[in-house]
Amino acid sequence: MKIAVLGGDGFVGWPTSLHLSARGHDVHIVDNLSRRWIDTELGVQSLTPMDSIQERTRIWHQETGRRIHFHLIDLARDYDVLKAWLDEHRPDAIVHFAEQRAAPYSMKSDRHKNYTVNNNVNATHNLLNAMTEIGLDAHLVHLGTMGVYGYSSVGAAIPEGYLPVGVETLSGDTASLDILYPTNPGSIYHMTKSLDQLLFQFYAKNDGVRITDLHQGIVWGTHTEETKQHPQLINRFDYDGDYGTVLNRFLIQAAIGYPLTVHGTGGQTRAFIHIQDSVRCVEIALANPPKRGDRVEIFNQMTETHRVRDLAEMIARMTGAEVAYLPNPRKEAAENELVVKNDKFLALGLNPITLEEGLLAEVVDVAKKFDYRVDRSRIPAVSAWTKDIAPTIERDPEGKRLKSVG
Amino acid sequence: MKIAVLGGDGFVGWPTSLHLSARGHDVHIVDNLSRRWIDTELGVQSLTPMDSIQERTRIWHQETGRRIHFHLIDLARDYDVLKAWLDEHRPDAIVHFAEQRAAPYSMKSDRHKNYTVNNNVNATHNLLNAMTEIGLDAHLVHLGTMGVYGYSSVGAAIPEGYLPVGVETLSGDTASLDILYPTNPGSIYHMTKSLDQLLFQFYAKNDGVRITDLHQGIVWGTHTEETKQHPQLINRFDYDGDYGTVLNRFLIQAAIGYPLTVHGTGGQTRAFIHIQDSVRCVEIALANPPKRGDRVEIFNQMTETHRVRDLAEMIARMTGAEVAYLPNPRKEAAENELVVKNDKFLALGLNPITLEEGLLAEVVDVAKKFDYRVDRSRIPAVSAWTKDIAPTIERDPEGKRLKSVG
Ligand SMILES: NC(=O)c1ccc[n+]([C@@H]2O[C@H](COP(=O)([O-])OP(=O)(O)OC[C@H]3O[C@@H](n4cnc5c(N)ncnc54)[C@H](O)[C@@H]3O)[C@@H](O)[C@H]2O)c1
Ligand SMILES: NC(=O)c1ccc[n+]([C@@H]2O[C@H](COP(=O)([O-])OP(=O)(O)OC[C@H]3O[C@@H](n4cnc5c(N)ncnc54)[C@H](O)[C@@H]3O)[C@@H](O)[C@H]2O)c1
Repeated sequence: MKIAVLGGDGFVGWPTSLHLSARGHDVHIVDNLSRRWIDTELGVQSLTPMDSIQERTRIWHQETGRRIHFHLIDLARDYDVLKAWLDEHRPDAIVHFAEQRAAPYSMKSDRHKNYTVNNNVNATHNLLNAMTEIGLDAHLVHLGTMGVYGYSSVGAAIPEGYLPVGVETLSGDTASLDILYPTNPGSIYHMTKSLDQLLFQFYAKNDGVRITDLHQGIVWGTHTEETKQHPQLINRFDYDGDYGTVLNRFLIQAAIGYPLTVHGTGGQTRAFIHIQDSVRCVEIALANPPKRGDRVEIFNQMTETHRVRDLAEMIARMTGAEVAYLPNPRKEAAENELVVKNDKFLALGLNPITLEEGLLAEVVDVAKKFDYRVDRSRIPAVSAWTKDIAPTIERDPEGKRLKSVG
Repeated sequence: MKIAVLGGDGFVGWPTSLHLSARGHDVHIVDNLSRRWIDTELGVQSLTPMDSIQERTRIWHQETGRRIHFHLIDLARDYDVLKAWLDEHRPDAIVHFAEQRAAPYSMKSDRHKNYTVNNNVNATHNLLNAMTEIGLDAHLVHLGTMGVYGYSSVGAAIPEGYLPVGVETLSGDTASLDILYPTNPGSIYHMTKSLDQLLFQFYAKNDGVRITDLHQGIVWGTHTEETKQHPQLINRFDYDGDYGTVLNRFLIQAAIGYPLTVHGTGGQTRAFIHIQDSVRCVEIALANPPKRGDRVEIFNQMTETHRVRDLAEMIARMTGAEVAYLPNPRKEAAENELVVKNDKFLALGLNPITLEEGLLAEVVDVAKKFDYRVDRSRIPAVSAWTKDIAPTIERDPEGKRLKSVG
């Protein structure tokens, strides 16, 4: 298949591109490299030394003889360029990772809120619009997030996309209606993913676009079979307060001998998936496209759930680190249950890597190996969710959050 | 109260501004006049001779001694200007009409789809973002549409915003959850109103913004008490294939002695409200704001429902016109039921004007009075909903739809 990987220079996009290329697909990465620019804006960098996309694809060719093509296009701003590119290349499938994906970054300031809404809504809408305009019947696989559902609901198991509800009809009967499982996003970033869902629903219904939406949990781990093949194929590893996920930040804190900082009680339960499983899931989704005219196919792409404090304790156990509790900059429930259905991927052959078995390798092969590159001042999360919360975050005179790295 | 009327130069915004000014409020219209530019783009004009906004407000002052201020701001493009304006004026309430509101226009081409998504999402998001940023606790009243729900559902009565659903909790009990009544928008325009709903939900929850969302039916009628006071205060009347609602187009066809063109079977049922009732509803909503921290208050702002073919027959009866049936350019159910709850406005004192009693005045005082201004070539609806439908619309060599004006 000819596959366009939008956002293929990112944390999940890069190993996905390698995985698909290794399986013989003709992979085209489309990316505006905005994520590298955001690193520059924030003054942060990947823990792992990450090469340019041009260099990475060159190494991949050198090592395997396979070509991955790179195209510099901004999906959100360059509608005409995107449309012309799609029309010229007419891929069989499109994997869409190209969005601003950090909740804290999306809440940093009004400018960051606007950027996230514009970038994500326009990237997705431009893509759907262009596909429709040029009559491209490619299978579109999008990365959504489990986070759209929020975490403060009544504690029901989260189904794979749709919820059957009974409504009373005019004739007095009860009819069953399958609705999109209601979202309750907790940040501007998550909200944009709820907006995406409605865009997909519309274009699937009106124009028959074939769409699979993968509601993904937090991705952990760094290496996949392919990224391990050469040091310069290494994947990025974010540990800063904006892009670093909770697990990555714990790993780094443990590696440099600081307490693991838990926000609030650590009672927040989250869903997780290893990067190797994530790329496998994309491959499985690509192999199982919906038919033209079908509703949007939705998978929950996660393999296990954990409370944040249990994660901290797991890592503390493995590394001897301590755990420290800080005020929570997010507006969210202090404690929540989370049960997620993921039967569809399991039925299609996914065999999950568990945190229990894979975490130690992360500590040794990644966190400890590159700990000399850690910039400690970048670990704290400083984006406050509301104006009321902002003053509760203790900062040093340069605006960085105090206390969280000791 | 100091009230900002965003989109106050439009069809509903102008009489609302007059109505609120007449009741002693300090009214500030904010508008980018994009709707006048769209008239120019399409080569259409209001049936009624409509003055510039500057001239209209001058006449209002001359007739009543009251001032309505006008500010030229693009909500979607000029975030910083909007924020500075709100911070300087700090209105007590904001009525938000400022969106691209025609479904056919939103489906004209890929450019029009992008424009509608950008304009509407950004207008609403910029507003919410700016209010939050400057800590403005104004009551925001937004005009949504009944159309977000689509018209092909199981035929249940549409509640005022929320639907209680039972979900099974982890402990095995059933909990009741109030969810936003699921939307099923039938055009890009309607889809943007579904997106708006999620923006409102987020900002009400995260930042305590006080929001009332009015899900309005099709507004009919031209005059209100205030617009009648002087010929130069007259409201706009759209009858073209993009902005003219079905009722207005029937009125014009009747006035110029052509058959009333019904698309499809005319079995589509729609909700309606008279412009005088619409401005009254906004006034009522303003007088009943939600409290900070409340969920979004949602009203169904409509007073009656009719099938399109029944409307055509009603007007045919009043005027002696014939009815003609044409292929439908929209992708929609041929026939649908529609029952809408509107108890909230009735309970707050709304006393509806019915089509049966008001239509004849529209025929005589508006359609017949200005029939010399009708441009017949502009009445047909030529925007096709999908690429498949486009070839079924018969057009003349200049691209205008044939047959619909005889
Ligand atoms: N990482 C996770 O834990 C996780 C969890 C759930 C969902 N997801 C989703 O998976 C996707 C990929 O996540 P990631 O962690 O790889 O993020 P990332 O930030 O590492 O990668 C995103 C890539 O998209 C590109 N991009 C952004 N906007 C673009 C635009 N307008 N035009 C072209 N390219 C653009 C960036 O330059 C970057 O290379 C995102 O949509 C994210 O929401 C990620
Ligand atoms: N007319 C109806 O039948 C009807 C029915 C249901 C809902 N509504 C809703 O009511 C609202 C008003 O409808 P209308 O019929 O008066 O429409 P209209 O097009 O006559 O007026 C909209 C006004 O908003 C302005 N505007 C648009 N985008 C703007 C922007 N970015 N910045 C500043 N101003 C901007 C336009 O210039 C125009 O004056 C719309 O939101 C519409 O969706 C209307």
